[in-house]
Amino acid sequence: MAIGAVHAGPELEHRIFEVLQEAGTLSGWQGLGPAVARWAPRVPDLAPERDLDAIRRLGGGLLTPEDADWPASLADLGLSEPIALWVRSPHRPVPSIERCIAIVGSRDSTAYGAQVTAEIAYSLAERGLSVVSGGAYGIDAHAHRAALAGGTGPYPTIAVMAGGVDRYYPSGNEELLRSIALQGAMISEVPPGSNPTRYRFLQRNRIIAALCSVTVVVEARWRSGALSTAHHADGLSRCVAAVPGSVYSANSAGCHRLLREGSAVCVTDAAEIAELAGASGQNLPTESTGKRADHDGLDLQDLLLLDALPLVSPTTAEKLCTVAGLSLTSVLAGLGRLELMGLAERTNGNWRRNKRT
Amino acid sequence: MAIGAVHAGPELEHRIFEVLQEAGTLSGWQGLGPAVARWAPRVPDLAPERDLDAIRRLGGGLLTPEDADWPASLADLGLSEPIALWVRSPHRPVPSIERCIAIVGSRDSTAYGAQVTAEIAYSLAERGLSVVSGGAYGIDAHAHRAALAGGTGPYPTIAVMAGGVDRYYPSGNEELLRSIALQGAMISEVPPGSNPTRYRFLQRNRIIAALCSVTVVVEARWRSGALSTAHHADGLSRCVAAVPGSVYSANSAGCHRLLREGSAVCVTDAAEIAELAGASGQNLPTESTGKRADHDGLDLQDLLLLDALPLVSPTTAEKLCTVAGLSLTSVLAGLGRLELMGLAERTNGNWRRNKRT
Repeated sequence: MAIGAVHAGPELEHRIFEVLQEAGTLSGWQGLGPAVARWAPRVPDLAPERDLDAIRRLGGGLLTPEDADWPASLADLGLSEPIALWVRSPHRPVPSIERCIAIVGSRDSTAYGAQVTAEIAYSLAERGLSVVSGGAYGIDAHAHRAALAGGTGPYPTIAVMAGGVDRYYPSGNEELLRSIALQGAMISEVPPGSNPTRYRFLQRNRIIAALCSVTVVVEARWRSGALSTAHHADGLSRCVAAVPGSVYSANSAGCHRLLREGSAVCVTDAAEIAELAGASGQNLPTESTGKRADHDGLDLQDLLLLDALPLVSPTTAEKLCTVAGLSLTSVLAGLGRLELMGLAERTNGNWRRNKRT
Repeated sequence: MAIGAVHAGPELEHRIFEVLQEAGTLSGWQGLGPAVARWAPRVPDLAPERDLDAIRRLGGGLLTPEDADWPASLADLGLSEPIALWVRSPHRPVPSIERCIAIVGSRDSTAYGAQVTAEIAYSLAERGLSVVSGGAYGIDAHAHRAALAGGTGPYPTIAVMAGGVDRYYPSGNEELLRSIALQGAMISEVPPGSNPTRYRFLQRNRIIAALCSVTVVVEARWRSGALSTAHHADGLSRCVAAVPGSVYSANSAGCHRLLREGSAVCVTDAAEIAELAGASGQNLPTESTGKRADHDGLDLQDLLLLDALPLVSPTTAEKLCTVAGLSLTSVLAGLGRLELMGLAERTNGNWRRNKRT
């Protein structure tokens, strides 16, 4: 247990408490370095038993890296791996990384962003994947809500909170967050009762990025918290994807920035996202294909011949030689092929295009 | 002059004619391989003097690779470099590659595509760059028209035609094409009088790609002629750029495909395109910047301290130690810095946030 190396936060309090108990004296912490020293003023407020009672009352539990259910993906965070996760959920364990997709974006999403988010999240949850987000207004809320609606697996959606999992923040999302806790999970690295602070919002983003194989940014302004999650994901060698939008939408400027800088893959639907996540081929998208054109698959000579064929008045093979610049042998063989394909028709020994409907 | 190696097309006729004249006999061509043999049936129709008269009457001329004004960029086409260019323009020479930007896209452009194209082309021409396109309906026409309006240089726009430069194709663009020929240039590799054929449209795209340092696809369906130009540009190691749009627009699907496959850079305005084209720094875009936030540039300790400061009722430095988890020394130094930055204010020895308006 390397206490001196970890990041700041109330989750440290429990470790400190343990250390202090082991040392049997308050002077014990003074040898443990500045990270622990900083928390010394808080020791009198510590109440780990109260926190554990709280999470149990909420129907959840505390996960630590020693647990078999600890998400292996978090180890990629190295020194900033959380010391513990407070999980409010009927399920355990958290789905493995290839089943988790983060969907993040602006709090002030547009109607376009809301629609794209809802369609993508619904479809991903329908495939049994978990949609991970931050429980905020805007894109986060649309993603959670649609995932709850589309969900077929045990974990349709996970909200990673900046404060404690007993806090409904923002308050307008209380009902949504309660549903997430009942059908999916609310997760936090800080104990129940903790307030969300700006610092914790930024720290929380690294957990979203680490839990997921793909982080999708649906809408983000040029500067946006969603971009912080994307950069965390990029730093962890996770796949980052961005949804394009109008060049006139300030809410898409952050997505276009990621695409322009080559930090994100362009995605337009759930199938493309599932493909990025899927280690196996089960999530492969069906290939979009345009309408087949008349001249598909023709070689150069037959293409020249097709171009030379008149649309209305039939003409002779000899005339086609001149127009297409082909030998008579090539023209006659080509006319046979085009006739077979239904592209040319013969009338009294003369030839013209056969316009298929 | 390696006649046997080149591609098919009427531009060959002139070379063949010369060879035949040199050989002094029609049987001369039989030793020159199949590419020449294919054109033998056309020899009786050749009239190079008539073609040269026609281009002169149109106020233009014939360029060949031997001319000093021949665009050096076309040499990158290797064996498929055109044998000649028929140029209808008051100017010569054609601008060098770093001054030429191709803008291509769907013939059935949307209102969105039209607006983006017009803004980009106008702004590029205003910077003295040449907007190169194919003279077709839709994105091509919007690009040419806006470039004519915005143009400040001698060559605001260039239309590379699939048929002869005396042909106004499509006919609805006649007025536009006449303006292009007067203020910019109409260019073709086939002589006056040649009809545009499907094969020539495809071949024409390689010339657009080769002439330009950047090819911008504004709108393109999943399958589109514009993508053929983009692939030519990619194959020539030219920069390919794509404008993003709604994921619900079929006219943006081709652009998103290019972005997703990593074949194109995401661009949203003329400044970003000029930056891609500019060898020098003169075309660099002004950096888009979001609103500066209060906490920009704060180090971790000051960020923690800022988060800990109450918004309303001032508190003591000792209390801030507990809330922020910082030593008293750190808190006092940090409060001094935040006060200097106008982020903290002191009232009777107690501290709170100073909300800047």
